[in-house]
Amino acid sequence: MKTIELDIQHALYFAEKEYDGLKEAAVKAVTTVHDGSGPGSDFLGWVDLPSKTDEALVDRIIATADRLRERCDYVVCVGIGGSYLGAKAVTTALQDNFADFYLPRPKEPKLLYAGQNISEEYTEELCRLLKGKKFGIIVISKSGTTTEPAIAFRVLKDLLEAQAGKEEAKDLIVAITDASKGALRAMADKEGYETYVIPDNVGGRFSVLTPVGLLPIAVAGHDIKTLLLGAKDMERATALPDEGNIAQTYARMRNALYQSGKKIELLVNYNPKLHYIAEWWKQLYGESEGKDGKGIFPASVDLTTDLHSMGQWIQEGERTIFETVISVKKPAVTHRVPQNAENLDGINYLAGKNIDEVNKMAELGTLIAHEEGGVPVIRLELPAIDEYSLGQLIYFFEKGCGISGYILGVNPFNQPGVEAYKKNMFALLEKPGYEEATKEIKKKLK
Amino acid sequence: MKTIELDIQHALYFAEKEYDGLKEAAVKAVTTVHDGSGPGSDFLGWVDLPSKTDEALVDRIIATADRLRERCDYVVCVGIGGSYLGAKAVTTALQDNFADFYLPRPKEPKLLYAGQNISEEYTEELCRLLKGKKFGIIVISKSGTTTEPAIAFRVLKDLLEAQAGKEEAKDLIVAITDASKGALRAMADKEGYETYVIPDNVGGRFSVLTPVGLLPIAVAGHDIKTLLLGAKDMERATALPDEGNIAQTYARMRNALYQSGKKIELLVNYNPKLHYIAEWWKQLYGESEGKDGKGIFPASVDLTTDLHSMGQWIQEGERTIFETVISVKKPAVTHRVPQNAENLDGINYLAGKNIDEVNKMAELGTLIAHEEGGVPVIRLELPAIDEYSLGQLIYFFEKGCGISGYILGVNPFNQPGVEAYKKNMFALLEKPGYEEATKEIKKKLK
Repeated sequence: MKTIELDIQHALYFAEKEYDGLKEAAVKAVTTVHDGSGPGSDFLGWVDLPSKTDEALVDRIIATADRLRERCDYVVCVGIGGSYLGAKAVTTALQDNFADFYLPRPKEPKLLYAGQNISEEYTEELCRLLKGKKFGIIVISKSGTTTEPAIAFRVLKDLLEAQAGKEEAKDLIVAITDASKGALRAMADKEGYETYVIPDNVGGRFSVLTPVGLLPIAVAGHDIKTLLLGAKDMERATALPDEGNIAQTYARMRNALYQSGKKIELLVNYNPKLHYIAEWWKQLYGESEGKDGKGIFPASVDLTTDLHSMGQWIQEGERTIFETVISVKKPAVTHRVPQNAENLDGINYLAGKNIDEVNKMAELGTLIAHEEGGVPVIRLELPAIDEYSLGQLIYFFEKGCGISGYILGVNPFNQPGVEAYKKNMFALLEKPGYEEATKEIKKKLK
Repeated sequence: MKTIELDIQHALYFAEKEYDGLKEAAVKAVTTVHDGSGPGSDFLGWVDLPSKTDEALVDRIIATADRLRERCDYVVCVGIGGSYLGAKAVTTALQDNFADFYLPRPKEPKLLYAGQNISEEYTEELCRLLKGKKFGIIVISKSGTTTEPAIAFRVLKDLLEAQAGKEEAKDLIVAITDASKGALRAMADKEGYETYVIPDNVGGRFSVLTPVGLLPIAVAGHDIKTLLLGAKDMERATALPDEGNIAQTYARMRNALYQSGKKIELLVNYNPKLHYIAEWWKQLYGESEGKDGKGIFPASVDLTTDLHSMGQWIQEGERTIFETVISVKKPAVTHRVPQNAENLDGINYLAGKNIDEVNKMAELGTLIAHEEGGVPVIRLELPAIDEYSLGQLIYFFEKGCGISGYILGVNPFNQPGVEAYKKNMFALLEKPGYEEATKEIKKKLK
């Protein structure tokens, strides 16, 4: 099986001194991830997750997915942050660009998402779509009390029970939650929903290879065994703190660039299907590293699309950015540039070429232009967009993230800043238990 | 009619000195935009476009839209950058969140986009969707030779002619292009397509209120007269270089923040329908200001969605960011949080509230949290998401952009950096006329 390749030659010379200086720190960071001697070590369950995932668990997930596929035209994933981004990233990468525009076919339900915002219109319009339709729900929450998914699940559970009946609804709802604690666990046990466990030692943003990501991905019809195999092979390939460990090299390179003044990392793709991989990656790196007043700012662009949007800034704006390009070696389908006798548009020199050949030359031309414009470019090459490559890619980025956070000197596995807005929101909404906070915040608003 | 409001009180005190210092520069920048005395003044056609748009032109656009609506189930907009982002932004804001999941209804065609990437899979999958379907094409390009749309148009024109016949296809293709020059003008005149003109003095990123944006928006069934009215009212409201000019205030405030070390501006929404407004805005500001080694880096988040993703970074990462929040006063539909007797999820304290009330408290709680965390917040309040408000918003951002670029000291109306990758791409693809560049680039690659 082909593996992802990492190329830092278009970045290294921008920060060679810093890269050299991080040699030992990088080795130490890898060791710290493996031996659990660093901060946040209660959350290292993702490190050997691919190799330790029980085959029986995977088979049960596939059986559940088949049940939902058999009985639903729509399956709504209720979750926010790490509880939906991994599934969204993988399924978007693997599906037709225009998948949404087709009606569901038998045993091919559509995945929808809810509980990832508090939009009244989104909720109402989702209910309108699902009215009279056969649908199921995968509700994903460690606690079951996170506001966004809690509201969405209430709304959708009511709709499903009204349409399918309470008995039938039980079979169409699957809860992915804590093994024993929390509101969703209690509700699932009481109602008799099938459940899956979010391991205690895997944080939300590292959870795509647990049932959190695997069940929705299987419902969408993708091969989760091959996804896990790709991850497992990358687990093995990044197991040692040596120069051959590409996750270590990526982590070291990006920290070197950061030290040299490159404050923004742009994750770049040349295939629109990878758009949500970037959204997943932003959470992974942003939430892991953006703390203590530091951290690379993670941003993304879809190219060549955004060369006609952010391209000007990238080429000539502040020289404080670097890129990590995900290049896909081979497209899954074939379409050539047609010949045209009149050639009024002047592109007959491209006629007969695969469109991807043009895309690849745009990519190479852009790499040269950006590098010459002062933008370091790290390049990742994916053999294809398939389950095996995506499994590798996911584990590569997770491993790179843990290592990178330790090099940076933060706890890459906590997210203390996420509570700040919630506390204020609860106070403003006068949630029971927040009486003091309510008084305080009302004073501030006067 | 209600107008957009701007509030800088949560940003001003972070950069009061800089804001004071920019008083005269801001006045001068507004004057320069109005009197055309600055760089790029050949491209100021957008300034009085809303008030100068001919009613006959708008009526013709509506008639064309009606013809396409009558005869098509899908209308593909072929264009890249400013040739699609404005239409995409407005139509996404105005349509159902789940619009894509419904089949086209009579006289309600679906808008699709092509020519905004060079993806072989995207092209092939689009052709599969359109196979056997009634579709039309709006092709938008000043020159007609931009690689991405040129390839897409060749492919789609062939498909349409094969399915509908060459005669019928002529009526289903509309070209928006230069008045007299260029490949697309020549092709349209030769084939007999209906055409609209992209004015010479309006650059791509400022073109949404020309036929470039208006025709697709009308095809999607929205009221372009009211959109233009909103823009016209904002044109009037920002006509003077005084303290009441909110575009001037926005431009001055963001430059003050930039001078004080805030390098990244996050455009924030709390309504997923505004996602593409941010993408349009990124081109507008990124392409206008990212040059000469300077310019605020434009980024965006959808909240509360991304509070569980980028929220940690925003709250506690490098203190080099500020936010511009777009708040929408009133949602278009109603959905309340349901009551639940058991209250296992603990959210009965929200039961009976409109979901938007919760969203608004999340917004306010986040504003307080971010401000206290060191993030200046500029706040824009939209009365609603409708044509009138969006017309205002578009003109507000355009005006703010022109002013801001002059305050920054760049030419906000050129984009010299966009050519760099194209030149390399043409050399790599051995385009006729690039023989010398081909030789050079091949040497580099050795």
